[in-house]
Amino acid sequence: MIRFECDYTTGAHPKILEALVNTNDEACPGYGVDLHCERARAMLRELCQAPEAGVHFLVGGTQANTTVIAAALRPHQGALCAETGHINTHETGAVEATGHKVLALPAENGKITARQIDRYCQDHYDNEAWEHMVQPGLVYLSQPTELGTVYTLAELEEISQTARRWKLPLFVDGARLAAGLAASDITLPDLARLCDAFYLGGTKAGLLFGEAVVIPNPNLNHDFRYLIKQHGGMLAKGRLLGVQFEAFLKDGLFLEIGRQEVDQALRIRNAFVENGYSLFVDSATNQQFPVLTNGDLAVLSSRYSFEVWAKVDQAHTAVRFCTSWSTTDEDVDALISSIQSLPGRSSGAAGAKGGSKL
Amino acid sequence: MIRFECDYTTGAHPKILEALVNTNDEACPGYGVDLHCERARAMLRELCQAPEAGVHFLVGGTQANTTVIAAALRPHQGALCAETGHINTHETGAVEATGHKVLALPAENGKITARQIDRYCQDHYDNEAWEHMVQPGLVYLSQPTELGTVYTLAELEEISQTARRWKLPLFVDGARLAAGLAASDITLPDLARLCDAFYLGGTKAGLLFGEAVVIPNPNLNHDFRYLIKQHGGMLAKGRLLGVQFEAFLKDGLFLEIGRQEVDQALRIRNAFVENGYSLFVDSATNQQFPVLTNGDLAVLSSRYSFEVWAKVDQAHTAVRFCTSWSTTDEDVDALISSIQSLPGRSSGAAGAKGGSKL
Amino acid sequence: MIRFECDYTTGAHPKILEALVNTNDEACPGYGVDLHCERARAMLRELCQAPEAGVHFLVGGTQANTTVIAAALRPHQGALCAETGHINTHETGAVEATGHKVLALPAENGKITARQIDRYCQDHYDNEAWEHMVQPGLVYLSQPTELGTVYTLAELEEISQTARRWKLPLFVDGARLAAGLAASDITLPDLARLCDAFYLGGTKAGLLFGEAVVIPNPNLNHDFRYLIKQHGGMLAKGRLLGVQFEAFLKDGLFLEIGRQEVDQALRIRNAFVENGYSLFVDSATNQQFPVLTNGDLAVLSSRYSFEVWAKVDQAHTAVRFCTSWSTTDEDVDALISSIQSLPGRSSGAAGAKGGSKL
Amino acid sequence: MIRFECDYTTGAHPKILEALVNTNDEACPGYGVDLHCERARAMLRELCQAPEAGVHFLVGGTQANTTVIAAALRPHQGALCAETGHINTHETGAVEATGHKVLALPAENGKITARQIDRYCQDHYDNEAWEHMVQPGLVYLSQPTELGTVYTLAELEEISQTARRWKLPLFVDGARLAAGLAASDITLPDLARLCDAFYLGGTKAGLLFGEAVVIPNPNLNHDFRYLIKQHGGMLAKGRLLGVQFEAFLKDGLFLEIGRQEVDQALRIRNAFVENGYSLFVDSATNQQFPVLTNGDLAVLSSRYSFEVWAKVDQAHTAVRFCTSWSTTDEDVDALISSIQSLPGRSSGAAGAKGGSKL
Repeated sequence: MIRFECDYTTGAHPKILEALVNTNDEACPGYGVDLHCERARAMLRELCQAPEAGVHFLVGGTQANTTVIAAALRPHQGALCAETGHINTHETGAVEATGHKVLALPAENGKITARQIDRYCQDHYDNEAWEHMVQPGLVYLSQPTELGTVYTLAELEEISQTARRWKLPLFVDGARLAAGLAASDITLPDLARLCDAFYLGGTKAGLLFGEAVVIPNPNLNHDFRYLIKQHGGMLAKGRLLGVQFEAFLKDGLFLEIGRQEVDQALRIRNAFVENGYSLFVDSATNQQFPVLTNGDLAVLSSRYSFEVWAKVDQAHTAVRFCTSWSTTDEDVDALISSIQSLPGRSSGAAGAKGGSKL
Repeated sequence: MIRFECDYTTGAHPKILEALVNTNDEACPGYGVDLHCERARAMLRELCQAPEAGVHFLVGGTQANTTVIAAALRPHQGALCAETGHINTHETGAVEATGHKVLALPAENGKITARQIDRYCQDHYDNEAWEHMVQPGLVYLSQPTELGTVYTLAELEEISQTARRWKLPLFVDGARLAAGLAASDITLPDLARLCDAFYLGGTKAGLLFGEAVVIPNPNLNHDFRYLIKQHGGMLAKGRLLGVQFEAFLKDGLFLEIGRQEVDQALRIRNAFVENGYSLFVDSATNQQFPVLTNGDLAVLSSRYSFEVWAKVDQAHTAVRFCTSWSTTDEDVDALISSIQSLPGRSSGAAGAKGGSKL
Repeated sequence: MIRFECDYTTGAHPKILEALVNTNDEACPGYGVDLHCERARAMLRELCQAPEAGVHFLVGGTQANTTVIAAALRPHQGALCAETGHINTHETGAVEATGHKVLALPAENGKITARQIDRYCQDHYDNEAWEHMVQPGLVYLSQPTELGTVYTLAELEEISQTARRWKLPLFVDGARLAAGLAASDITLPDLARLCDAFYLGGTKAGLLFGEAVVIPNPNLNHDFRYLIKQHGGMLAKGRLLGVQFEAFLKDGLFLEIGRQEVDQALRIRNAFVENGYSLFVDSATNQQFPVLTNGDLAVLSSRYSFEVWAKVDQAHTAVRFCTSWSTTDEDVDALISSIQSLPGRSSGAAGAKGGSKL
Repeated sequence: MIRFECDYTTGAHPKILEALVNTNDEACPGYGVDLHCERARAMLRELCQAPEAGVHFLVGGTQANTTVIAAALRPHQGALCAETGHINTHETGAVEATGHKVLALPAENGKITARQIDRYCQDHYDNEAWEHMVQPGLVYLSQPTELGTVYTLAELEEISQTARRWKLPLFVDGARLAAGLAASDITLPDLARLCDAFYLGGTKAGLLFGEAVVIPNPNLNHDFRYLIKQHGGMLAKGRLLGVQFEAFLKDGLFLEIGRQEVDQALRIRNAFVENGYSLFVDSATNQQFPVLTNGDLAVLSSRYSFEVWAKVDQAHTAVRFCTSWSTTDEDVDALISSIQSLPGRSSGAAGAKGGSKL
């Protein structure tokens, strides 16, 4: 069984593991104030060209999302978010558990627009009964989105301007940002300049665990460590996060891993398209969503693990293939070879059926 | 500098680290349903003689406390707890953040009694305005306590009976339970029999991180994984917890580490007592609280790291020395030697001044 | 200006006010345990044929909704609700503020179906990642809905059966239930039999304020008064609620007021339909939603107050006319006369354009 | 039975009731934006000499406390409060239900001091583990306190200065402020000058219900109406609060009622003291706490209703007599006469045993 079901099936990238082993016997103060954390913070600030930004290392993404959002909102405010956004669908109501409504907007391919945000705010304040409704208090995006698509720099600029006009902090969930950086024109300095908070995910890019939250907005960063502790996110052996992020950021390893995940994913994407398969959504990153006939699905399932995503019609199912730091050329070669001999492929019709179909 | 400031300064015990390295390349499903987690669960159930108990692996103690308490209480209920209890003092109000009051009881050496619990409940229901007050809904203990003391089996039996009479779930915070098992007559099967939930802490006993929550009460265990996810505690690479606990539980490693932590701590304790130092509280476990003159404190600070705990009077300060899995005989030999030549020691007066002084 | 903008513009119905004046000098215990509350409770239990049901008097609807829902749900659960439901749109996230997500379902004319509820639950438990999603924990309906429509007894029976099959408490928001009773085949005993909790609203039916929450489910009723107090809903001079509900329930006054509100509203509805106006939604109760040309809207605005509900297109706007206990025949006669001379009416074309248009 | 058990046994003061009756048929917009509310707001701003202050009318005290505190605090902050403070003891954890810990300080006669607040904050920030503890975020006082005692202007000035030095909003619970104004040297303009928020209670001073929250701090007042709605405190027929407060504030009726409550209470107090009874706490306001022998208690219980407060020893019990707007000279004359013939009185020993005994 070759595994493509998610990007967190294996342990750590060898360089990350090596760093953990090498520093295992060091004695460090707890809770993220050790030298490794300090160094990783400095490296990230420099990569972001944001010398004053707060940097905090958390264990997981739900924790990062909940803590940032709870820190940003007053009690009567909610978080604007694509209806497919992770906080709206797959965090068991963690945001609501801190008292805040997720204000879900219709999304296209996982993305929302500056115009939608503007309209929502305008409508809110135009309504006479505004105080009876949850006030929009923050914009939450994912880069890449939960469907693998990416915002362009132009889109992010526009969303950022709109958010600032309405005085809404902009927060970007970067659980797969390493892949996102490889697939879009948005850079870390762009994120630091345009967002109030974002994070660079490690868990899905070769760390054992860890998300680096960057908070350029000093008001939002103020007292943030209290909130980390309150949300159960203050790791006793915080050095584990510092050590991993030092290795991840050093010599651009995070970019290299992201690049490699995306390259392997695009090889898979292209093999499907060239063999006449359509895509449930046309993803630019390390998640790919081809639409299979049920017969193809059965064939591929016998050799590869992947996720069933959505039933498209009686005869077709959208699935997800996901690459990770540990996906090898051989894994992908095998898969491509299998695709080329699937019963359902339409030889020669490639491209014609390619492209997004949501 | 020899470090005694806490029990989470170094990385993992060699056997734990080895297990992580050896399994790094395995591909596992996420979120704690992998084979390592299953095996570790089975081992712990067997050690607890509780074949039906729920077992869940969480990253940290605050998360474990908050999640269990939130799962157990209805909105109008609070958690009875020693005023020195961790949830009352050092979790930035994590329990309150889930909507529940911590009902703090006066504690003696970190402990509360069955009688106090009984009295509190009786008074609550005797009061005509009971509905205007937070209803006691759970009993929270720590074993060992935050001051290193331990409950005896007889005490725990009595507390358990009282809690059950008032229909209060009993929850034991075992962040340092490995040391507690070495220092008290309470065993894992006792805990499984007498508690509704408890945990065996790994972070302070040689794991990189990890707390194993055992929930013998099926009602409390029902849907518990939803709560883990909601509290940001569902680790993507959950296998890391399974792998570590497999190694920790195998051949009694957890007992061995706990035993060793306590043995080294008692050597330190005895050196202080024999040299005439009194103890702020007489701890049986891996935290020791001698009362030093300010002069002694300065002397020891130059070679050892330890924590200033409380100012006792103008001339004396209580400090905390903490041992861990990585504390060596040499570390403790050096400290004992230093104690024996401290200016403040009262040669011959030992024992006389020994004993608890809170 | 004749007022139709809502059903809480005036004070109390004369019989309610009289009861308050007559009892003003009585000395009563506080917090709803006085004789008037006890009597009103007994009357309501008898009207519901539910001798064991809990009955609690609260000041307002948002309070009633939030308190019942908080009492019913565990932390990882949410409330299934029409997307137009009051808790989803007009309570400033009060439900989320207690930690729970509102699970909004697409609604037709403000209503949801048993089939939708069934499907949502089935999908939830069919999903492998169920623990990552909010668990459906309660069904919330409004009778009548926020758009004035009503559930039939057959529909409520089916929803109740479905909810019970999935072990979901069923809660009916009856802020306008007096009107609802006049306009549907559902009776108080039906509600008591089919629901776990519901309330009979007084505020919008001639009381100064007050909602009578009936809780036939004893588990949900258990400790409910603690929750009332915690939510700030325990009125010190609780007798005010008892006194008002005694008068409201006596000799069917609540039915009479509801009947009268609906009758006046239907006169308005019919006048619009007969003059060729379509309806935004075809309401059976005391809120009516005709679609006006912008010219008609301007004409009517000069003499009547009513609410602008939604822009239908460039030239048309849906508005809301609302009747109350204090709406007189003369008020409605005047309005009908005005309708009959509106520039936008299509003489003869009535009926053709009538009917719901959402 | 003559009733002294609390100050909310009867309905409204005749002038309040008359205002409600006279305005009953007026049609007003809902939710507190009607003319009566506007007028009452203007009157209160003028009485406070605070032309810019926010003024909001809420139904009850728990709601007022919870809403103000939730509006003021960030998630990691708590409310400093006397351990006997209402929010700490008798609101079923309403503050905790919004996520915040009540930081209880030892109280003397219900009061806390500027020095205690200063010390608490100093200790918090001196502690290295500060981020692991709840941050003090607001100071909550009651004037008068739950034990009837009052702060002096000098004390309030000092507390206000201390709070401002630590950037803590100061909030004064004035559920019985009408009596407090009669018994202390603190005026409404003092409160508006020294506090960030406070309220003037109506429920315990002759209104059917109603608390007028004054918020001089514009940051705290910002968006406050959203929070009122979220907490279920936005009364549909908001005019009821406006009408009552108009009458209450007009020609100093509130001062008159407060004065009268206190005068009657002091007559009771003095009768006890003159007959040799000690006081559990020496209250200056409308609650009085004599210590009775159990025999006296039985005698008085047969004719008067009052509250058993605390068991002092085997033979003595502290009780509470409470006066209200409806307490008459005759009621108090009768009680005094009864006191003068109690078996337990020590003729001649008066004064000797008088004074506080807590």
